[in-house]
This record gives sequence, C-alpha cells and structure tokens, in this order.
Amino acid sequence: MAKQERAFVTRQQIIRAAAESFDVTGYERTTLSDIVDGSGVTKGALYFHFKSKDELGAVVIEEQHAISMAAAAEIHATGAPALEQLVMLAYEMGRQVIEDPVVRAGIRLTLELSAAEGPPKPYVDWISGLDQLFRDAAAEGDLADTMDAAHLARYFVSAFTGVQLVSNVLTQRQDLESRIEQMLEIFLPSIMAPRRRRRIDSYRHARWVPTQG
Amino acid sequence: MAKQERAFVTRQQIIRAAAESFDVTGYERTTLSDIVDGSGVTKGALYFHFKSKDELGAVVIEEQHAISMAAAAEIHATGAPALEQLVMLAYEMGRQVIEDPVVRAGIRLTLELSAAEGPPKPYVDWISGLDQLFRDAAAEGDLADTMDAAHLARYFVSAFTGVQLVSNVLTQRQDLESRIEQMLEIFLPSIMAPRRRRRIDSYRHARWVPTQG
Repeated sequence: MAKQERAFVTRQQIIRAAAESFDVTGYERTTLSDIVDGSGVTKGALYFHFKSKDELGAVVIEEQHAISMAAAAEIHATGAPALEQLVMLAYEMGRQVIEDPVVRAGIRLTLELSAAEGPPKPYVDWISGLDQLFRDAAAEGDLADTMDAAHLARYFVSAFTGVQLVSNVLTQRQDLESRIEQMLEIFLPSIMAPRRRRRIDSYRHARWVPTQG
Repeated sequence: MAKQERAFVTRQQIIRAAAESFDVTGYERTTLSDIVDGSGVTKGALYFHFKSKDELGAVVIEEQHAISMAAAAEIHATGAPALEQLVMLAYEMGRQVIEDPVVRAGIRLTLELSAAEGPPKPYVDWISGLDQLFRDAAAEGDLADTMDAAHLARYFVSAFTGVQLVSNVLTQRQDLESRIEQMLEIFLPSIMAPRRRRRIDSYRHARWVPTQG
C-alpha cells in the first residue's frame, strides 16, 4: 500500500472505532483510550489524525451525512418516479442504520447536539432534499392537491427519525424494516392524488440495492 | 408545613432540579453537585431522599410517565370520541414537553436507555394505551377498515417522538405546536373511514385544558 492509502485506511479505522464506541457507550462516556483500543491503532496515530474527541464527533456526523447523501444521489439518478424514490430512500436509510455503526452514531450525535448551536446541517439537507422530492411528485401528478411539499418533507424526516429510534428502544431495531413498511402503508395513501392511488402497490415495492464498491 | 409535607416539597425540588440538569446538560455530564446547587437543598437532604444519580434518573422517568398517564386518564374521562381524544393527547403532550422540564428530561432519558435492558415501560404503556384508543375509534366507526390498531399505535408514538425531537434540534421546540398540527393534518384523513371524514375538522380542533391543582 502507498503511504497515502495507508493513512486513509488508518483514518477510516479510527472513525469506525469511534462510531462504534459513540453508538454503544454514548459520546460522553467514550474516552480516546476506548477508541485507541477499538481501532487497533496507536495513540500517536490517533492524535496524528484527530485533535480531540470533539473533532471525531464532528467527523462521524459528516461521514454519516456523506454516506446518506451519496445513497440519495444514486437513488435520484435512477430516474424513478419521486414517490418510488421516497420508498427506496426509506428502506435504504433503514438498512444503513441497521448495518453501519457510523450511520447509527452520526444520527445519535446529531440528535444530541445542542439546538442552541443552530439547526444541524444533516437535518436541514434532508428536509430540503425531500422538499424537492415532494415537489417532483407533485409535478408528476402523484401528490394530492392539498399537500404542501415543505410540510411533508419536515414530517417525513421527523416520523422516520421517530420510527427508527422507537424501534431501537423497543427491539434494538430488529423490527425496523417492518416498521418502515407500516409507516409507508399509512403515509403513502394519505398523500397521493386519488386518481394515482392504484400505483401505490408498485411504488411500495420499489427497492434500491447499493452497488458494491 | 407539617414535617411530611416539607419532605415532599424538598423531594419535588430535587427531582425538578435533576430534570433541569438532565435536560440541559445531559445525564452523563450532570453531577450530584449540580443538582444540589440547582435545587437549593443541602447535600445531606439530597442523600436522605436519593441514593445516587441513577436513582434520580429512574425517578425522573417515573415522574414524567406519571404526569403523562394522568393527563391521558383525564382526557379519557371526557368521554369524547376516541380520535378527538387522540388530538387532545397530542397537543397536551406537546404542551407538557414545552412547559415541563421533568417531561423533557424523562423523554430524553428513556430514549437514551440501553435497549438491551428491555423495552422501557413508558413506551410500552403509551403504545398499549393508544392501541386501545384506536380500537375504540374502530368501534365508533371512525377508523377505515384497512387500519390495524396495533400498527397505528406504534406508528403514532414513533412519529410523535420524531416530531418533537426534530422540532427540538431545529427550533428548540418553538414550532412544535404547528408541527403537531401538520402531523394530524396528514395523519387523520389517512386513517379515517371515508364516510366519517367530514368530522375531521371538528376532531382536529379538539383541545383539552388541564385543571389547575
């Protein structure tokens, strides 16, 4: 491995170990020593890459957001109808939360940020992305006339956040996928234009599978 | 004041100060000294009532749950149609979160509990209470035939949890009341029997005001 590549791998090992500790132990109780132990790198290597636990917290949030946004961009690139993209996004976010400790930790840290520091970028970006998606759905004729894209975007992000958190406290996310299914079963019929409701079944079954890379 | 009454007042002062610290500073960073300072009681008095921060955390969760359940019982006693009770409950929970630090802290602590310790009682009780409410709505003919009370209960508790948390990170709950309104605007039409949808407006405007006491 080239030197630069080794440095990249080390950095990712540290981020992953930090995320695992933040997710399981919580940010406050995690120490830099825990992260050193979890990552298998030396304390020197950790300090070469990161100045503090604060910085690691910020980097985990950024990484999680980048992972989610990359999936959203790829799903958008499918060119599927907007509401089909919404279904793909919901299941893909669920999959990421279940499989990726960086995603779990990023979401947890973002929610624990003090609201006094201003609205966190991940939530702002998600809501504006979904706002565009619901506008697209309206342009495609799928949305009921009474629906406001901005309200739907905010509500969908909020409801999804709650669904995954409550699935965590009740079942450690073991039932998350079926709870996402139920959420969409209640949500989709209520927002779709009556003349388009016969499309619900095909939309509900849309899935996106990330390419390995 | 009688001795017993004084002890009760002191206990409540300590619980309130603990809740304020847990809510603002977070459970981990709160020390017993912070709680002593916030409550205005002596360290001796605190230790007379509570053995540890752990115990205070558990008591704050219990108190919050008792406050919420008391409101739910009073709303049930109005004898209003079940879906009207649901609207009253949603706004009342919103009001409690905004006004009562014990409620805010209790919700935060419950969500931070390790899922490994089993499903937390507040969520289990809320979901079973709402399950009954949706069964009542079905018996009253207000629920669409396709709706499953257990799924709706779980979804409503999840969505509400997300709505209040996202309102917190984005606006420090300043927009919570209007977000609850939007949530109900999206949710109610989707679950109601078509022949009963003309009642939506009257249900949506139902409010319950706690009696002073």
